Parts: sequence; C-alpha cells; structure tokens
Amino acid sequence: MAIVVQNTERAPLEVVDALARHGVATVHEAQGRSGLLLPYMRPIYKGCRIAGTAVTVSIPPADNWMIHVAVEQCREGDILVVAPTSPSDAGYFGELLATSLARRGVRGLIIEAGCRDVAELEQMAFPVWSRNVSAQGTVKETLGDVNVQIVCAGQAINPGDVIVADDDGVCVVKRESAEDVLVASQSRAEKEAANRARFEAGELGLDVYGMREKLAGKGLRYV
Amino acid sequence: MAIVVQNTERAPLEVVDALARHGVATVHEAQGRSGLLLPYMRPIYKGCRIAGTAVTVSIPPADNWMIHVAVEQCREGDILVVAPTSPSDAGYFGELLATSLARRGVRGLIIEAGCRDVAELEQMAFPVWSRNVSAQGTVKETLGDVNVQIVCAGQAINPGDVIVADDDGVCVVKRESAEDVLVASQSRAEKEAANRARFEAGELGLDVYGMREKLAGKGLRYV
Amino acid sequence: MAIVVQNTERAPLEVVDALARHGVATVHEAQGRSGLLLPYMRPIYKGCRIAGTAVTVSIPPADNWMIHVAVEQCREGDILVVAPTSPSDAGYFGELLATSLARRGVRGLIIEAGCRDVAELEQMAFPVWSRNVSAQGTVKETLGDVNVQIVCAGQAINPGDVIVADDDGVCVVKRESAEDVLVASQSRAEKEAANRARFEAGELGLDVYGMREKLAGKGLRYV
Amino acid sequence: MAIVVQNTERAPLEVVDALARHGVATVHEAQGRSGLLLPYMRPIYKGCRIAGTAVTVSIPPADNWMIHVAVEQCREGDILVVAPTSPSDAGYFGELLATSLARRGVRGLIIEAGCRDVAELEQMAFPVWSRNVSAQGTVKETLGDVNVQIVCAGQAINPGDVIVADDDGVCVVKRESAEDVLVASQSRAEKEAANRARFEAGELGLDVYGMREKLAGKGLRYV
Amino acid sequence: MAIVVQNTERAPLEVVDALARHGVATVHEAQGRSGLLLPYMRPIYKGCRIAGTAVTVSIPPADNWMIHVAVEQCREGDILVVAPTSPSDAGYFGELLATSLARRGVRGLIIEAGCRDVAELEQMAFPVWSRNVSAQGTVKETLGDVNVQIVCAGQAINPGDVIVADDDGVCVVKRESAEDVLVASQSRAEKEAANRARFEAGELGLDVYGMREKLAGKGLRYV
Amino acid sequence: MAIVVQNTERAPLEVVDALARHGVATVHEAQGRSGLLLPYMRPIYKGCRIAGTAVTVSIPPADNWMIHVAVEQCREGDILVVAPTSPSDAGYFGELLATSLARRGVRGLIIEAGCRDVAELEQMAFPVWSRNVSAQGTVKETLGDVNVQIVCAGQAINPGDVIVADDDGVCVVKRESAEDVLVASQSRAEKEAANRARFEAGELGLDVYGMREKLAGKGLRYV
Repeated sequence: MAIVVQNTERAPLEVVDALARHGVATVHEAQGRSGLLLPYMRPIYKGCRIAGTAVTVSIPPADNWMIHVAVEQCREGDILVVAPTSPSDAGYFGELLATSLARRGVRGLIIEAGCRDVAELEQMAFPVWSRNVSAQGTVKETLGDVNVQIVCAGQAINPGDVIVADDDGVCVVKRESAEDVLVASQSRAEKEAANRARFEAGELGLDVYGMREKLAGKGLRYV
Repeated sequence: MAIVVQNTERAPLEVVDALARHGVATVHEAQGRSGLLLPYMRPIYKGCRIAGTAVTVSIPPADNWMIHVAVEQCREGDILVVAPTSPSDAGYFGELLATSLARRGVRGLIIEAGCRDVAELEQMAFPVWSRNVSAQGTVKETLGDVNVQIVCAGQAINPGDVIVADDDGVCVVKRESAEDVLVASQSRAEKEAANRARFEAGELGLDVYGMREKLAGKGLRYV
Repeated sequence: MAIVVQNTERAPLEVVDALARHGVATVHEAQGRSGLLLPYMRPIYKGCRIAGTAVTVSIPPADNWMIHVAVEQCREGDILVVAPTSPSDAGYFGELLATSLARRGVRGLIIEAGCRDVAELEQMAFPVWSRNVSAQGTVKETLGDVNVQIVCAGQAINPGDVIVADDDGVCVVKRESAEDVLVASQSRAEKEAANRARFEAGELGLDVYGMREKLAGKGLRYV
Repeated sequence: MAIVVQNTERAPLEVVDALARHGVATVHEAQGRSGLLLPYMRPIYKGCRIAGTAVTVSIPPADNWMIHVAVEQCREGDILVVAPTSPSDAGYFGELLATSLARRGVRGLIIEAGCRDVAELEQMAFPVWSRNVSAQGTVKETLGDVNVQIVCAGQAINPGDVIVADDDGVCVVKRESAEDVLVASQSRAEKEAANRARFEAGELGLDVYGMREKLAGKGLRYV
Repeated sequence: MAIVVQNTERAPLEVVDALARHGVATVHEAQGRSGLLLPYMRPIYKGCRIAGTAVTVSIPPADNWMIHVAVEQCREGDILVVAPTSPSDAGYFGELLATSLARRGVRGLIIEAGCRDVAELEQMAFPVWSRNVSAQGTVKETLGDVNVQIVCAGQAINPGDVIVADDDGVCVVKRESAEDVLVASQSRAEKEAANRARFEAGELGLDVYGMREKLAGKGLRYV
Repeated sequence: MAIVVQNTERAPLEVVDALARHGVATVHEAQGRSGLLLPYMRPIYKGCRIAGTAVTVSIPPADNWMIHVAVEQCREGDILVVAPTSPSDAGYFGELLATSLARRGVRGLIIEAGCRDVAELEQMAFPVWSRNVSAQGTVKETLGDVNVQIVCAGQAINPGDVIVADDDGVCVVKRESAEDVLVASQSRAEKEAANRARFEAGELGLDVYGMREKLAGKGLRYV
C-alpha cells in the first residue's frame, strides 16, 4: 500500500519567504497558537531561521529507504519532513543525503528521529531539526509513503504545508491559510515593536496591557 | 489566596557579586553540597556566570500572568525564579519580558519550564536557565504568588536567597548563610588553586589527597 | 573484590589515530553498525573528533574515588571510560581531574553520568562526552574496578579497546579488530567520496544506488 | 475560533463492536500496522477490551473546561478522546465526569494527559487509557474545540473514527475503512488460530512461515 | 553537619485519620490545589489509602544509612518520607526495614527513589509510594539528616506535616493547616456527593455548573 | 556476519532452580551487587519468580526475525533474552511466539523493547519482563545473532548465563559463578531470616547492625 504522491500543491514561495522573516514564535502566535511541533525537536546547530514547503515522508523505524525516494519529489523551496511509524532514535540522515537535497534547492530537514554527520552538516550550512543526534545507521528494506498526511512530533502535516523553523522550534502552517497567517504575523510583529519601545522606556506590562484592574478583580493581594 | 509579597529582604549585593565569581561548582561544594537545582536546568546559551537575589514566582501551568506581576517587584541585582504548580514545557518567557526586566537591572531568569525567542535573548545578552525551549504560548487567566517559598527543579527557594548560575547549572544559597558560604567558597578556591598546581606538575590525586592507604585498607587489589 | 588491572594490552596508536580521522559515523558503519554508545552520550562542547585506547572504570553511583585510582593507569593516547553500577547523574569529573589526565596525555573522557566545570574544560580543550552536566559532587567511600569489562551507555567495553568520539557520538572498536575496521573505514570513505561527487553533480540516490527496480518489486506506486 | 461540531458521522456500531472482539494487536496488524497510539498510553486498570466511536476534544494545557462541553456531544457507543495543545500531565478527568459519561453510554476515555480518582473509576468499571495518573486539578478558563481533527499520542484522529483499546494500547481505525479493517481482522484472526494449533503441536515458526531458505539466502550461518 | 531532630511536633492523629478517608484528590483540591507530589510517585501495589505524619529523611544518593537512623525517630501514625540529595533509582528499602517500621506503627513509606522486595511488601501490607522499583542495593557510608525540611518529588515537606497517599498519588498538608484542610475537605466531599447524584440523574456539567453563558461569552460556536 | 551459535554450555538446572527460590534481591546482593538489569525492565504481570539459562538474541530495531530463529535453539529450562541494536519500543513478541517457546519448556522472556498480547500472555502464564508494552508490529527483513554476548538493559549477558527474574526486576549470574552465587545466596538468606526475627521483636537496625558508634564517629548529632 506504499505510495508516492507526485506534483502536490504547495503554498506560494513569496508567502513562505515572508513567513520565514517572522520566525516561529510570531507565526505560531499569529495562527492562534496552533501548529507547533513538540519541543524535543531541536536544531543541530543554532542561528538558522528558515521556511519552506513540506514534502512529507512516513518511514518504518530504523529504515531510511523512503528518504531516498522522497529526494526526487523535492524542488526549490521545499523542506523535507520525516516521521517514523514507531519511535526510533537511529541516524536516518547524513551529509550525502543533504548534498543531494541541497543540490535541488531544499532548505532543510525536519526529522522526528536521529541525524548524523552533524559537524559536516553545519559546515555545509544545511539546517536540520531532529529529535536527537545519532550515528546509528538504518536499513533500506521496507517501503513507506511520500507526500501523505503524517504526524511529526505531535502535529499533523500535509504535503505543501508551510514549515517555519528556527532556534525556538518548528511550526507548521496549513497551505490554505498561509496568506492569512502572514497578514496576522505582520500585524502581530508591528504590535510587538510598539510594545518593545514602551518596555525599553521603562513602562511595565501591568500598565502596557492594562492588567491591574483584572488582577484586583480576581483577588490578588499585595502584602 | 494569591499574594504578592513586597519589599522582601535580600542578601547584600557585594556578597552576591563575590559569589558569582566563584561559580556554581565551587559555591555548591562550599555550602556542603546543597542547593543545586536538578541538572535539566540548562542555559539557553553558553558562557554566562551570574549571581543575583531571588524574586520568586509560583505560576499555574501554561499561564504566565504572574510573571508580569513579578516584574514590578524586581530591582537591580535580582534574578527572577519561576516554577509552575504542575509540570509544563510551554514557553512562558520571551524577549519583551526580558526587555522589561533588563531595564530594571534584573540579571537573568531561572524557569522550570520553557522559554522562547532564544536567539533574541542571546543577542540582547539576557541569560536564561530553563527546562526546555518552546515557542508554545501561555494564557493570562489564573493568579499565582510572588515572593513566597517555591520549589524550583527540586530545591526550595525563598525570596531574597542568592541564585548562582553558569554553564554547570543553577545553585541556591540561603540568604542567611550567604556570607558564610562566600568565606567557605574563597577558602575552597584557594585550596583548589594549590592542588591544580600540583596536578599540573604531574602529581597524582592518589598522593595529593593521600588516598593510597585508605584504598589498601578497603581491600583494593592491583593485578 | 575490587581490582585494578595494570598493564593492559592496547590497540596500536597509529591505528587509533587513523580511526580518529574517519570519525564515528564511518567507523560505526565500517564495523557492521556495531559498537555505538547510546545517543544520550553528548559532547560538552562541539567540534572535537578524537580516538584513544580505553582505560575502563566501574564506579559506585555518586562516588568518584576510583577515577582517581584510574588516572595512574592512564598513559599517552588513552581515553578514560567511566560507568556507574547504577544510574546517576551527579558530576563525577571536573577540571582538576582533567588537569591530571591531560598531563599524562589522556585525550578525553567518556562518562555515563554527569560532568562539571564544563566552561573550564572547554577552555583547557579537554573533551568530554557525558550523559549530562551537573555540579553535584560525589563522595570517595566505596571501591570499584579499573580495567575490567564494563557496560557504558549500552556497549560492552574492554580495556584497550579503541574509542572514537565526535559530534555524532561515541563508538567502541574491539582491540582485536581495530586494524580490520581501519581498512574497512578507508574503503568506505573512498566509496563515499565518489558518491558525494555524483550527488553534487545532481544524480539521485535512486540511481546511484540502483534502487528503482527493487522499489518497484516491493510494490511502490507513484500517483 | 473555538468550535463544537455537532452531529458528526460515526462508524456503524455493529462494525465497532466486532472490532472490539479482535483487540488492538489484531486490528493494528489488519490495517497495515497503522493507527497505533504511542505506547505511553496505558490503561488505569487491566482487563478491558473496548471499541467505540471517537468524540474528539482539543484542550488547552491544564484546563478541562471543554471536556464538560464535549459530554453533551456524546452518545451510546462513543469513546471520548482528549489531547492538550501542549504537553501536560495534570489530572483532567475523574469520577464525576465519568459518572456523566457512563450515564450517556460512553464506553471509555482516551486522554494524552493525567487522570485521577483511579480507584473509583475501576470500581465503577469506567476504563481510561491515559499518559499518567495525577490528582493535580485543572482550571476552566480557556476554550478549545470539540469534534475537530486532533493529534493524540502521535496519531491524527477524526471525530467518528473507531477507537479500539485494550491492555496492549490504543488504536484508531478511520471511519471510512472500518468495514474493510474488520474483514481483514477476521481473516487475520483465522490465520492466527491455524498457526497457533501448529505451534502447540511443536512446529517451529521457521517452518510454519517457511523462513529457512530466505535466512540462508541472506547469509545466516550456524556454528 | 548531619543532624537528627528529635521529638518534632506532629499534626494530631484524629485529624490525620479523617484526612485519610477523603483521599488525595479531595484533600489536594480542598487546600487550594497545592502540595501534590509529582505524578511519578506511584504505589508499588494498588488499593491503599493512608495518611500519617511525616518523618523526613534527606539521604545521599545510593546510600540508605540514614533510613536506619530515622526508624528510631518514628512512632505510631508516622509515614517515612525519603529523598536523595541527587537523583538515584537504586533500591533503598525492602522488607527488613518495613518489618522494623511496621513494628513501630509506621503506616507507609514515600521515597523519591527505588524500592525492592515489592512482592514481600505487598504480602505484609506495608504500602510504599516510590519513583521506581529496583533491586539495586545501596551503601551505608555517608551521613544525611532526619527531620529537616526536604524537597520530595517537587514538594517541600517539613517533619510533622500530614502525608495523604492513595492510588492517585501523594499529597502533603502543612501541619499548621491540617484542621482547616480537613474542614474544607468535608465541605468539598459533601458538594461532590450532591453533584454526583445530579450527574447520575442525567444532568450535564454544563448545567450543574452553569457554564453555558460563560462559554458563549468567550465566543464558543456550535456548528 | 550473522551467526547462530548452537549447543552452548548452560549453567546446571538444579543450580538455576535453587537460585529462583532466592529471588532477584537476594541473588543480586549475594554476588556483590552486580548483574542487575536497569529498572525499566518490568514484568508484564506481577507475582512470578523464575530462573533459567539464557539464550541470547541480538536483533535489529523493529525486526523480530531472529526471535523465530532463536526458538529452535531453546530447550527446557531456558529464558530467551532479546536486545535490539538500537533502541526501539515496538512489540516484537506476542502469544504465538510464546506458545512456541512454552511448548519447548522455555520459562520466560526478557526483552529490552516492547511486548504485545499481554492479556493473553498472562492467561497462558508465560512471564515477560520488557521495557514497555506495545502492539506495534515488527518486520522480518534483517539478520542478527543468536547466542552471542549481548548487552541487555545495561548488563552484558552471555549465552548459558543464569537469569533470575521477579517483581523486583531481572538479574544475570555468570554461568561460571552460578554455584558460588547460590552458596552465597543461601548464606545471605539465613542471615536475613535471623535479622527479620530480631526486627519483628522490636530491635532496631541501629543495634542489630551495630551502627551507633560508627555514626557518632562520622559526626552525627541528635538535637
């Protein structure tokens, strides 16, 4: 029953690129605090902020065969998103696969499992968010699926969805709502900039957000 | 029953600053190996060594309202110490709160939960020791307490206690014993410097610490 | 029943040094995907790639006495490998022990427990792979064994075995098979270099590894 | 944006009841090894084997308000499936909610969080599969959603899907494929019964499954 | 600096016994949702509901010497509460210590570590709530403290405080507020009984708790 | 390089059976507190106490092919011991394999991974100690080894070693030292029986073990 879905629809890249500039925390807030992958998904090196369109891969545990299959489905602007069907911390991915993906314009990898060659990956500037780092190899024996809905680190992800990733973690934005989330992100970023100026000037959140009355109403006592 | 205790007594800042220079490992040893927070408390970026006086916050899970309340209670030399009443890895804290705290002279945050905007926090040099990193937002619905005794990562912490934090972790020194611990830290640091010189000269711990006889007495055999 | 085995046989250093150049991922693959320690063993700072001959230490939980005993058994080219007899995350090791080991030409430490003074260790360039970081001190009360077979992070390790460690983790190579694994590592590295060139040129793994037919045979469908 | 979807379509109860008789292991195999929730989902007491149609609840962390809302959407044959939007181990559910659900014919609860009153729940024979047990209470402050797609313990679950749960764990069967999975389960159960008889008679799996030739072909050596 | 505090004040046993009847979930709620130990504290066998006055023990990791010291400080109605100064899962406690404690009228053990002889302990009906089960022995080498404030599984516990424990977990009630918490528990239990009757009669929580208006006010939509 | 070692030497069954009567805690103590598997190895149902001779299986993650191969190597009195080469919590084992093993006189299974059909296994009285329970199936694609040294849950285990398992966990006794450990176990059991009588009579461990002087010598103070 293993399938590879080809030519999936993707969110438009100009929206994707604009979302990247806002980063995970803002985008996650802007879409109503949904879509955040579990916080054990961490970058293998710090300082990256990317967004791309998801090519999804559902793989058997400790078997990376379908990642090779998925490479062919990737194109400029994509991010590969991989989840095993049962938990595994083996190292499914290293510099050779990264070389192949980078050549196709893929922007990074999200994998709910292990990754290896992390020094080489940092050197070639190919960012990965993974559950862990491990040199443990995998086999190529059992089929899986490419570009079907998967669950990765607690979030359902569909092919063509937008993935935003930075040092704060990884967030998925549904393809259909990418434009709306971008508008909301811009609006939120502006509001935050205004608030930042007030905080720098020494105003307190209690006043900036008008909290004092509500706190008193709930019964907060100062002693 | 939520309360904010104002004008708590704090350990003197000259003692605090001197403790910072000794660092967590030395201070922890000097006070009889007590006060160390559990090792899952890690810095969001490396290379900081700070000390400050604790302003404590007990918060409901996934609700950061009381952190805003606590900011007003902070002053130069403080460190904010936050623990939820049940475990949560949400991101309670980001750059806006850090901006507000930094403006008041607060030296850092210790939070037994998640933190976000970690790239921005490193850029503005506001150090945080947290249980994890997460962009997951929190609500502002339920009251908690400021400046009461809390348990944070396995240690009971009182307002005004000294917090020392560096790459080795986080340690609390009771306000009343801060001077004594400083004296003990200095004495320990001197002893370590002397031992370091002997180790650099090639002497063995077996001889520096006079262990050979005790080991033989316990029955250690060389084969 | 505590013993210290002296003058254990070690793998030859020229083989050890050559294995270091290949790194953990290649060596692990070259020896048939065996010998990798569990992935919770992480470097306290990034960017090291070392190999050395194992001096093994079996210690009681939260007691580092036997590490001091083991130092005397170490010589140029060794790596100290430490495992407690029941799980513990205390900080068994810091800069004084590292000073002593460095003086003897020891290349690093592998410890299935905690390590402290991590800023100092990075500064003095003494690499450590540990389960965690903790300033929690240990006692010196109970004997253990030096240079016996131990299990560290899931692998049986004998004294004199080769330890390879880098950002991908830690791998053990049996002393007797070190030369064979080196030959296999060189052969694998050459093959990888050739494949890397093909990936950089845009070829796909599906073709480089001749996977298409096998995938079709297993029933993979493109839709 | 919080919504309650009413009158969702459900898998037919006669199919659901037949699936219950097969149990999690068989159903999971019969649908191609998909749909199994992560194994940290454990029954609060042993010996139950149930199936039902999912009423799904997406709740904020440490807030069980929406469970009260969901009760009204439940009917005979349902199973309530609850997942928080960020991880929480608080106790969202106890005997009062169970009393209310049992009155409506609900067969059990699946919750990726904590549950309390476990002695009382066992006494009233209301089965729960949860991530943990905790008496920690929750608040009723923030809205969530009822009968939307949720991710619970690693699986995407839609309202009306079939949930099968027993001592082996929890499995979801998509509403649309419930009949097919039932047929496949029956076929698998028959095959297993035949094999069981052969194993009881002393035949080996090597022969029952005809593995010897394939093993030899892969190079297995007997020494 | 190790001390044993003798003749500590304890909460009155008639209050303690009345709290036992209410159980952990009710007592925890009645005291404003505070005092609950982390949910990894689980009973080694099910079906017990006890309360007692705390005799506290702070012990070094993997060293149970001070438990022997603490036995002498125990009397009728006490519960022994033990926490190591750094995490350890060794088995500090077995049937011989239980025999000694039972002889003195001690009602159970709370230990944030491992316990062994669990079959024997169940047979002799001595209840234990522990972090894990382990046969791993401990040493008797290093001192600790008896009847000082300790932190056990996330809660600060003082000698003489009331411990309530059942299948839902473990809760501490401060000695000074035991009577007040008992009154609040009784009041809560009565309210719950009334609500239970309404739920059994088919009323919904939405109506019993008058939630419909508040939900609508927050914006919940039914579709 | 996959091999099956046949006709391995085993510890004598009369020694094995005698060790079973002592149980894990006593045997573990009697052999100097070594050989205990990590405490996450738990029985799938309570109340068993068994011993047997190890048939070891090293398997790839999520692949149970070699368990079928191992069955043929088992005989009366054996216990099957299984460890994957990288961590996996899939369900490698169920009632069909148990039927086959039981037919050959195998006494139980130790598996550092998942197990399924746990209700059926309890019903047929086939005991299993596993890392977890999971219905997740495994493949039969990749070879492993039977009757080689493996590391299972932190212990090196050789074929023919004695495995003792009960509610306290799992312990391995080396084949060569089985008789000695039995003698030591008997001696320890007698000593414990004598001490139990003294504890039941109200004597304290402080006196039974003569601890008071040593405690005073270390500086313990009663206040």
